[in-house]
Amino acid sequence: MSTVEDASRPSRVAGPDEGISHEELQLAARNHGIPLEALSYDVTPAGLHYLLIHYDIPVLDAAAHTLTVDGAVATPLTVDLAALRERPRVTHRVTLECAGNGRALLRPRPVSQPWLVEAVGNAEWTGTPLAPLLREAGLDADAVDVVFTGADHGFERGVEQDYQRALPVADALRGEVLLAYEMNGAPLLPQHGAPLRLIVPGWYGMAHVKWLRRITVLTRTFDGYQNAVAYRLRQEPDDPGVPVTRIAPRALVRPPGVPDFMSRVRVLRSGPCTVDGRAWSGYGPVVSVEVTTDGGDTWAPARLDDPVGGEWAWRRWWYDWTPQPGRYVLGARATDASGRSQPVEPPWNRGGFANNLVQRVDVVVLAD
Amino acid sequence: MSTVEDASRPSRVAGPDEGISHEELQLAARNHGIPLEALSYDVTPAGLHYLLIHYDIPVLDAAAHTLTVDGAVATPLTVDLAALRERPRVTHRVTLECAGNGRALLRPRPVSQPWLVEAVGNAEWTGTPLAPLLREAGLDADAVDVVFTGADHGFERGVEQDYQRALPVADALRGEVLLAYEMNGAPLLPQHGAPLRLIVPGWYGMAHVKWLRRITVLTRTFDGYQNAVAYRLRQEPDDPGVPVTRIAPRALVRPPGVPDFMSRVRVLRSGPCTVDGRAWSGYGPVVSVEVTTDGGDTWAPARLDDPVGGEWAWRRWWYDWTPQPGRYVLGARATDASGRSQPVEPPWNRGGFANNLVQRVDVVVLAD
Repeated sequence: MSTVEDASRPSRVAGPDEGISHEELQLAARNHGIPLEALSYDVTPAGLHYLLIHYDIPVLDAAAHTLTVDGAVATPLTVDLAALRERPRVTHRVTLECAGNGRALLRPRPVSQPWLVEAVGNAEWTGTPLAPLLREAGLDADAVDVVFTGADHGFERGVEQDYQRALPVADALRGEVLLAYEMNGAPLLPQHGAPLRLIVPGWYGMAHVKWLRRITVLTRTFDGYQNAVAYRLRQEPDDPGVPVTRIAPRALVRPPGVPDFMSRVRVLRSGPCTVDGRAWSGYGPVVSVEVTTDGGDTWAPARLDDPVGGEWAWRRWWYDWTPQPGRYVLGARATDASGRSQPVEPPWNRGGFANNLVQRVDVVVLAD
Repeated sequence: MSTVEDASRPSRVAGPDEGISHEELQLAARNHGIPLEALSYDVTPAGLHYLLIHYDIPVLDAAAHTLTVDGAVATPLTVDLAALRERPRVTHRVTLECAGNGRALLRPRPVSQPWLVEAVGNAEWTGTPLAPLLREAGLDADAVDVVFTGADHGFERGVEQDYQRALPVADALRGEVLLAYEMNGAPLLPQHGAPLRLIVPGWYGMAHVKWLRRITVLTRTFDGYQNAVAYRLRQEPDDPGVPVTRIAPRALVRPPGVPDFMSRVRVLRSGPCTVDGRAWSGYGPVVSVEVTTDGGDTWAPARLDDPVGGEWAWRRWWYDWTPQPGRYVLGARATDASGRSQPVEPPWNRGGFANNLVQRVDVVVLAD
């Protein structure tokens, strides 16, 4: 007899010498990162923005799509896209990053989507604020969590589910949280949650529920899989763990020079050049970026461009560099207004979340 | 002293127990395949179409971009995008597949972009036919090869290069070969070759040169890297090898049911369902598709939809299936009008090209 366990097995950590598995590679082939040269764009074009899809991409009919608000509310609501488009319209430029970014660099490696450093993008999301709609429905005084349900469906570690994630009521009511129906000025693409998704500026991607169809208010803590099991920082499988929430600070280098196809090592000719990149944090504005060219042994301050695009968007930084011929390992380290920064040694946890380890970009400088 | 060899090393084949390496994973994270559920679309949306970028994606100014035709021609030409747009406008729906599709399933595994089965897409490409432009330039009577040069630049196996690929003159003059400036009715996106690329219907992706800036006619065989070294079928490193040209037939199954996140194994409830997918070949129309549910031991005929989109587009097939609870391995096998079909055992070659091995889709059918 066949059972769910034939398809869906417990989480695990890779063995010490275990290369990336066939299962991890399947995920890497469908979920893609930003090509790092696309850090040149202030606003990431849709096809270059990172994607993490838990199950299959649903194909939904925007004209027939509705959003229901129910649970611990005075007046349950159902609204369609046309009604949402008639409500106040807001655009936020938001840096979105997958909570699992950096996972494949951890030792031992948690076996899941094997991101290196590229699970990020910075897009313009247009929609209507969530809070007024929740207030119209009338939250019960003892409301605790707000659950967002997508139209995507599958299995995960033995649990059949619609993708569901909850926010604490106080976070759901933050003014910047959007019901978004456009990305970069165009209707959402299917892979980005068409026709409607949640945008929670400052939080990792798992909170930005795609293909959003239902919002349910609870008077208890939500115990669904994605909140209670999956997205938690823990050292051992049976730790209760700590929820994954906001984006830890990170800076990425836009790799200079030109690449080798296979190794992605960068080749430069000696002489002056400008190294640049982007930096962001979900805990507050980035206040400084430092650059290393020796893999983290020494650091020098980078210059920051003026912020553009508001408080949820990444910020460009740059650094003038005149290397001699030789081999270098470039990286950058962001510090935000909350005082958080990035480690040179990765902060291991069993799910491989929030690993904001400093990037390593191998560079070979040739004589001119 | 640093040298090119510090960045760019010879090709190699993985050891018998070697998992996917960090270098292969870097490529998998930036070059993405079609999510297999997107086989539901007749025309693949741009963000879901496979991508293989050898170096970095150039960002070119369409208004300033020119195409030069030179070499063994009577009248060298330089034309801009506006002039190309004024020429006769043609749209072809074309299935594009990477020559390395299937590479990571080979044993031993050639180390390069580690595709499984997903490096494919079927889009509408609009542009102007190449042949009239070549005739206006006036090919010399002893012309042999036509070299297409892109604006992308990098290193590969020790060789610094612009991406360049040649077609034999007879193939360059085929009526269906396009200078394309639109994909699916919109200007090309940067990652698909904006503002201009070559489209060579029926050929693997390496021939469809992106960011096209120069066409050079030679009176000898082109000996550049991508023709003479990279894209050749060979068993040993020093074989001269055979050029990779047209797309071998392939059928893909759109995975039925719903997935497990990690394993991508599909879960269905027992009872009637329709399994479908797409089939294509660069050697001629697909004339039949067979389906297996037992990993290739037995086969049953699938039904083919009427062809839509012309002779270079994939064709939908479908199969009615009523499984009992149990475990299955689905696959499909296309046969084209030339008599070519797909193997159950992969056709190994050192570059891992043209591996049209039958796909394996693991399915668990649960009691209803």
